[in-house]
Amino acid sequence: MTTEDRLAALEARLRAAEDHLEILNLLNSYGPLVDSATAEPAGALWVADGGYNFGVPGGGTNRLSAPDEIAGMYNWPGHLDLVNTGCAHLTATPKITVDGDSAQAVGYSFVVLREDERWYLWRAAVNHWTLVRTPEGWRIEERFNRTLDGSPESHETMRKVLAI
Amino acid sequence: MTTEDRLAALEARLRAAEDHLEILNLLNSYGPLVDSATAEPAGALWVADGGYNFGVPGGGTNRLSAPDEIAGMYNWPGHLDLVNTGCAHLTATPKITVDGDSAQAVGYSFVVLREDERWYLWRAAVNHWTLVRTPEGWRIEERFNRTLDGSPESHETMRKVLAI
Amino acid sequence: MTTEDRLAALEARLRAAEDHLEILNLLNSYGPLVDSATAEPAGALWVADGGYNFGVPGGGTNRLSAPDEIAGMYNWPGHLDLVNTGCAHLTATPKITVDGDSAQAVGYSFVVLREDERWYLWRAAVNHWTLVRTPEGWRIEERFNRTLDGSPESHETMRKVLAI
Repeated sequence: MTTEDRLAALEARLRAAEDHLEILNLLNSYGPLVDSATAEPAGALWVADGGYNFGVPGGGTNRLSAPDEIAGMYNWPGHLDLVNTGCAHLTATPKITVDGDSAQAVGYSFVVLREDERWYLWRAAVNHWTLVRTPEGWRIEERFNRTLDGSPESHETMRKVLAI
Repeated sequence: MTTEDRLAALEARLRAAEDHLEILNLLNSYGPLVDSATAEPAGALWVADGGYNFGVPGGGTNRLSAPDEIAGMYNWPGHLDLVNTGCAHLTATPKITVDGDSAQAVGYSFVVLREDERWYLWRAAVNHWTLVRTPEGWRIEERFNRTLDGSPESHETMRKVLAI
Repeated sequence: MTTEDRLAALEARLRAAEDHLEILNLLNSYGPLVDSATAEPAGALWVADGGYNFGVPGGGTNRLSAPDEIAGMYNWPGHLDLVNTGCAHLTATPKITVDGDSAQAVGYSFVVLREDERWYLWRAAVNHWTLVRTPEGWRIEERFNRTLDGSPESHETMRKVLAI
């Protein structure tokens, strides 16, 4: 290989590693933002018109659109109750794969909530994120989230680790 | 340093960083596979004849061999009960050190299980993994796992972070 | 760009990615050390005179100084009770930003404790770490920790993800 080829290969490989770390930072910013009701910056983790598709307690699903509907959820009284009680929206480190200017991730998330002198798992879910490189850095395109209730849809979401 | 020396140093250092990230992806694939009873690909996270050595409730230890015995465990009725109830085998991000074509990791793992409208920690353990580079990518050689019960063996496993 | 410029840019960018991974390893060493009462190496994760500032149950805050006061805490009878019961001081992967020879991180931490046949969250907190490069590698300068109790101070700590 020529020096030019080796430099170009290094630049491309290093960018993919940096992308992996930047996506980790993006996903790990989500919890501290929503748990402090910092709603607008939380909505801005998505691209405009990006979505958050999640299961609704009692059945059914919902998709909120970025940035306004998503930010709105984090100013909703039910969410502020969690914030004022003391909670953590925890993103467990997912499998992340980068392919040029797009990326995918599959992994778990939890909502930890205070109750008296302890904390408990108020919610546990599996997620599939698609992400995209923008001039401002990586952003979420779609987050697909299903609670861990033994449903076929939750298991299919988990199996996406084989495809990314 | 000559250009050749600097290129070679960059290539070696970048490979180690990529290895670290690939091992993170490998370990974070484990949970979604076993929690959806995707048994065969879970067993294939190990090299052939690799092992999973874990403590058995009530005392004693067991070592299952890859890929068949390990995959078999994830098709076992007791495991399918967890899968159908809704669970997450969560690998907390471990300390990872790469040394050429082998690597080690030390960190915690948890099994989160649904119960009515909440989830709880059904199991909590510390792990020491040894890993090896194969033509198909990084694989687990041995996973040594002990529950967090205050035992000397669990504490010795934790202290391996000093040696890796 | 000249070959020299491209090599220098690659070296600087790669070092920042390696720093990110080394800081992950440093923070993920903390739990296994303190959960096995390996007190002195735990204190040595900080620079000399570095500090750990945390909320005290029942109100008030405290700041312990590295290495002796911090190591001393992990030999304290109240801590050894946790160690002998079976516990995990879990550092969730934080947002990490590296700026030359200093770095910052913001993220959650939990103390998981055994009770009969289960484990529960004995403590949940948000953290802001400042870190510094030393001749021996990255070390913690200050760790600021507040429990998740809905307090303004906990929420301000979370919002530091926007500033790092």
